[in-house]
Amino acid sequence: MSVNDTITAPAGFQAGSAACGIKESGGLDVGVLVADAPCAAAAVFTTNRFCGAPIVVGRQHVRGGKLRTIVVNSGCSNVATGRRGIADARKTCRIAAEILGAHETQILPASTGVIGRFLPMDKLERGIREALANLSDSSKAGHDFVRAIMTTDLRVKQACERVKINRTRVTIAGCCKGSGMIAPNMATMLAYLTTDAGIGPRRLRALLKAAADKTFNRVTVDECESTSDMVVVMASGRSTDVAGGRAESRFDAALQAVCQSLAYQIARDGEGATRVIEVTVRGAKTPRDAHQAARAVAVSPLVKTAVHGGDPNWGRIIQALGQTSVAYKPEAVVVMLDKTVLFRHGAPASGLSERKLAALMARKHVAITIDLNAGRAADRVLTCDLSRDYVRINADYRT
Amino acid sequence: MSVNDTITAPAGFQAGSAACGIKESGGLDVGVLVADAPCAAAAVFTTNRFCGAPIVVGRQHVRGGKLRTIVVNSGCSNVATGRRGIADARKTCRIAAEILGAHETQILPASTGVIGRFLPMDKLERGIREALANLSDSSKAGHDFVRAIMTTDLRVKQACERVKINRTRVTIAGCCKGSGMIAPNMATMLAYLTTDAGIGPRRLRALLKAAADKTFNRVTVDECESTSDMVVVMASGRSTDVAGGRAESRFDAALQAVCQSLAYQIARDGEGATRVIEVTVRGAKTPRDAHQAARAVAVSPLVKTAVHGGDPNWGRIIQALGQTSVAYKPEAVVVMLDKTVLFRHGAPASGLSERKLAALMARKHVAITIDLNAGRAADRVLTCDLSRDYVRINADYRT
Repeated sequence: MSVNDTITAPAGFQAGSAACGIKESGGLDVGVLVADAPCAAAAVFTTNRFCGAPIVVGRQHVRGGKLRTIVVNSGCSNVATGRRGIADARKTCRIAAEILGAHETQILPASTGVIGRFLPMDKLERGIREALANLSDSSKAGHDFVRAIMTTDLRVKQACERVKINRTRVTIAGCCKGSGMIAPNMATMLAYLTTDAGIGPRRLRALLKAAADKTFNRVTVDECESTSDMVVVMASGRSTDVAGGRAESRFDAALQAVCQSLAYQIARDGEGATRVIEVTVRGAKTPRDAHQAARAVAVSPLVKTAVHGGDPNWGRIIQALGQTSVAYKPEAVVVMLDKTVLFRHGAPASGLSERKLAALMARKHVAITIDLNAGRAADRVLTCDLSRDYVRINADYRT
Repeated sequence: MSVNDTITAPAGFQAGSAACGIKESGGLDVGVLVADAPCAAAAVFTTNRFCGAPIVVGRQHVRGGKLRTIVVNSGCSNVATGRRGIADARKTCRIAAEILGAHETQILPASTGVIGRFLPMDKLERGIREALANLSDSSKAGHDFVRAIMTTDLRVKQACERVKINRTRVTIAGCCKGSGMIAPNMATMLAYLTTDAGIGPRRLRALLKAAADKTFNRVTVDECESTSDMVVVMASGRSTDVAGGRAESRFDAALQAVCQSLAYQIARDGEGATRVIEVTVRGAKTPRDAHQAARAVAVSPLVKTAVHGGDPNWGRIIQALGQTSVAYKPEAVVVMLDKTVLFRHGAPASGLSERKLAALMARKHVAITIDLNAGRAADRVLTCDLSRDYVRINADYRT
């Protein structure tokens, strides 16, 4: 029997899913994640101002710091749907609450898919009932939950960490969906984390926000911030208490590891992606500068297409840097591919082996490092290459 | 005999070109534009901080307000080439100056093409000599000049306006290149304008800057600001004096018309483009808001791929708006395709004819209008759709 590394791995959680017909493909499109009892929860949401109805409702519900269940559907995002959309999101919560005997505000609704369509509530209600009827803490149930929340994703994205804290095993697991419209900002795509650690909602939110900022908020596929982004964590408290001191540090490190793994998986599964691009900036004057410079390079369609073509075209890297207002002197900037210097002293590095460069560019993970030589701050942004398939996927998405 | 509508149309200008072997295709790659005598000139340049060596030298030379000649090569941009690049740009000027008997500072150098390679000066010198040996004010000479400055451009981009000022005919002509790395910022791609109007360099610069801001700076293909952008205008004074009052207004309008035509041609010839997208924002609180909102929609790869796929996916338009900090209330925003309302009161417009929408999306010119209902400011940005060909062109550009 294989180990359960899904979101049902931590003690106290079950998942269920169903295919109710929202997705035309007939695939799984409703997922529920249910804690055995109301438990500490925290979330961060998209900062996009046209946020979806489930975000509006979810923000209110998570404010109390306790959640029992997350109900997610894919295929329709319930975004830009006005009052009717809000009513539909509330009804979603009410349906689940009645079945579980929970309070409506302990349910977090979420929807992902096409913007500007109303939820087919009859189908969705059937789906929620079916999903809640087949709850299980099995590995398969956790796996199916992820499949139920996927849209253009090609890969299932999951991560699990087990750490000893206070001589007790603590498990943190997470899953997420997202491969297009990816540029989280103080929030992120749909990501759900569970843990059996004991921790109150306030500390949990602080740790989640910091972890999301270091991981999910450092990924961009197309610099388009979704209207439905969210990361939610639920802590069942079935294992040891981790609040404060060394226990909290250990828990925090494991939480960050799970988030980082999921963030990496999102970049790897970026729409049409064939490679992950890791842009590291060091020697920046301020952390803000480091982030801005790394992001400028990571979002450049010219850099992304060059990597797709296996072309070490560093000219496009400095073009992108040149567009920023970050502090540096052009002649002090060093650009490296892996550890090979491409550009230094304002001119091309001499003696570059084209064959070596081509080999570095052919890897699945392309590491671009920029030293601004203007200070000590550093940052890192993950992205993916830009391929014809990104265009195909997005030109044909709705029609 | 057809009318000459090229940059040699205004009295006092000749052009020449040559194929010196910088372009591997063997096509024309050196162009010279020569005024009969030193004349009033003005220019605006890229604000990219890794600007090319020709920009550094050109800025110094145009400061005096007089130019005799512009020397342009394509195939190599002489950007990120350090001191040697600066020396090469100066030598380019010296070669032309000696042949013409002009002062070195009356020559404006320009280069466009791959970043990070040194200019092959032997080839270039031969090319400049040949181009200066075949000077002509013919339509063919003007046309060949444009071909000589093209890189990934598919179309020749030219415009010409003739106006009566002080009962005298004044001609303004222009040409430009540019289809990728297009996001001019207080400057633009390579664009050259000639006129036989009489006007001093100061007024000329003021008019050029304002015109470029309204036209070239409102075009984006990929939001990548080139390191080599410039717009240069030379005024021979062979026709009437246009400085001040009503004459200047008439001249200004014609200058803007030429710039606007060229800007539109750049969007139409964007790399891989099949359609021009015109994003108009009105009802904005401030002009800055109007520009920011229009730009946010115009740069969105999701909007651009939707237009490419003929999909009236307005959800992606509001997603892009939601990412900005522009003043509006989401429920007050109206989104239109041509004159058809797609989104109003925070929800999809009712009774939309899919067939009508598909017909509007199938046009070569797709007009998206957004009313923020937050004020009276308006702006407009031109862009093009994002196709597989953009990726193909940029993945394979250098290799």
